[in-house]
Amino acid sequence: MKLAIQGELGSFSHEAALKFEPRASIVPCARSADVFDAVESGAVNAAAIAIENSLAGSVAENYDLLLARDVFIQRELLLRIRHNLIAMRGVKFSDIRTVLSHPVALEQCRKLFRSHSSLQPVPFYDTAGSVRHIVTEQRRDAAAIAPKRAAGEHGGRILLSGIEDNQQNYTRFLLISKASKKVSGANKASLAFALKNVPGALFKALSVFALRDISLSKIESRPIAGRPWEYVFFADMLRGDDEPARNAIRNLEEIAEFVKVLGVYRAAERK
Amino acid sequence: MKLAIQGELGSFSHEAALKFEPRASIVPCARSADVFDAVESGAVNAAAIAIENSLAGSVAENYDLLLARDVFIQRELLLRIRHNLIAMRGVKFSDIRTVLSHPVALEQCRKLFRSHSSLQPVPFYDTAGSVRHIVTEQRRDAAAIAPKRAAGEHGGRILLSGIEDNQQNYTRFLLISKASKKVSGANKASLAFALKNVPGALFKALSVFALRDISLSKIESRPIAGRPWEYVFFADMLRGDDEPARNAIRNLEEIAEFVKVLGVYRAAERK
Repeated sequence: MKLAIQGELGSFSHEAALKFEPRASIVPCARSADVFDAVESGAVNAAAIAIENSLAGSVAENYDLLLARDVFIQRELLLRIRHNLIAMRGVKFSDIRTVLSHPVALEQCRKLFRSHSSLQPVPFYDTAGSVRHIVTEQRRDAAAIAPKRAAGEHGGRILLSGIEDNQQNYTRFLLISKASKKVSGANKASLAFALKNVPGALFKALSVFALRDISLSKIESRPIAGRPWEYVFFADMLRGDDEPARNAIRNLEEIAEFVKVLGVYRAAERK
Repeated sequence: MKLAIQGELGSFSHEAALKFEPRASIVPCARSADVFDAVESGAVNAAAIAIENSLAGSVAENYDLLLARDVFIQRELLLRIRHNLIAMRGVKFSDIRTVLSHPVALEQCRKLFRSHSSLQPVPFYDTAGSVRHIVTEQRRDAAAIAPKRAAGEHGGRILLSGIEDNQQNYTRFLLISKASKKVSGANKASLAFALKNVPGALFKALSVFALRDISLSKIESRPIAGRPWEYVFFADMLRGDDEPARNAIRNLEEIAEFVKVLGVYRAAERK
């Protein structure tokens, strides 16, 4: 079983992919669009994608790709995000001047920089990639902020662990594949829809859920390219493939310009 | 009049700031948080901040800061985003191998890279900053994607202009200041609110607008730090400081955990 991820080996996406499929072989891709290409072409069986973080918010690019591409959500999981300070073997904390990582990870570890003013945060394209970079380039004055797995994967050593400011730090990942499989015990569905640009349009759209007592766990809006200040909405409803859910979608189709069902799957347990 | 912007001189924020106040003196700040600090401390009179782009979507960080900080929206404007390829003086297009810019700008000029496979896109922290970088470092093999103003500001030369893939490319900017001024002729209000986590909560919240025929031009959700999978909503209503608008807000306050009025101002004309 081949699973694509965006980013390098040792990333949080890698961790999520192995939680979905512990024995999967992982195919790292540079860009999110490459991940979706690999799924659509059949080069991989599925992919693990990050969709939202409980502090940083939605991964907008993946919302856009879920709408545009011919893929379906099969599963979801919530991964606790623990950041670590990782350096080359033999490097001491006091040697470090520069700390590389993805801008979101740097932002989530601001206490580290406030309490150690000698450390300079430097944005890098990827968390695990920043570990690979400092090890490959033999940077003895630098460290990286990355998941634990990145140290093992690229031969770094963990100097500090659990350095994230806020421990309520989770990322929601989705397992996507090309085939729309019926999932037994599904109790959640993700939808995308566009509305006519008239007053009260979103209110009417939400009525199809509210009038059936269907709870929404998330609603997101994204711009429509080429139609400035018009939006596509993404909604997750806490209801699977049952009669009320099907009726709500049918009702939404009457109101919306279009509705796309992105997946019907089992909701992850919330700790 | 001093206006703060995030990013370097010559950026789109700089252009927007001068459209708000043609004679303002511009104070560039490294981070968005620094811009809000400058407004709150009185170090500047106001600031021009980007809030959403018609292709890339919302600027999440500025939504969070509008909620957290003691500032008010005074005005808005829509800026047409035109990207240019800018190099050092004396450098020819055929000399260029690397193109630096902010990741969003690189993503908005993909046709350039598709039709010139010798050009390698390289992410940089800022559009105008990438022009300053190639000029300062005397990079004869590199160019930057940036607004026209960046060429004049940092001594670069425009090789190609209007290289954005999609011409429906606009960014909405807000002028924010510390004082909540009454704006005459206000016909738009921006609100932030949080709801109890119960089924139908957003539906009820939107009813306060729909039942008064008040149109919403935008709705955005952002995570609440420390409360995973709970959200703050941001809504722009197309109604100013009149009786129905005030009633809608009062009605929303009955339902919501809190409501913050971010500003009551005149809507920008949409082309």
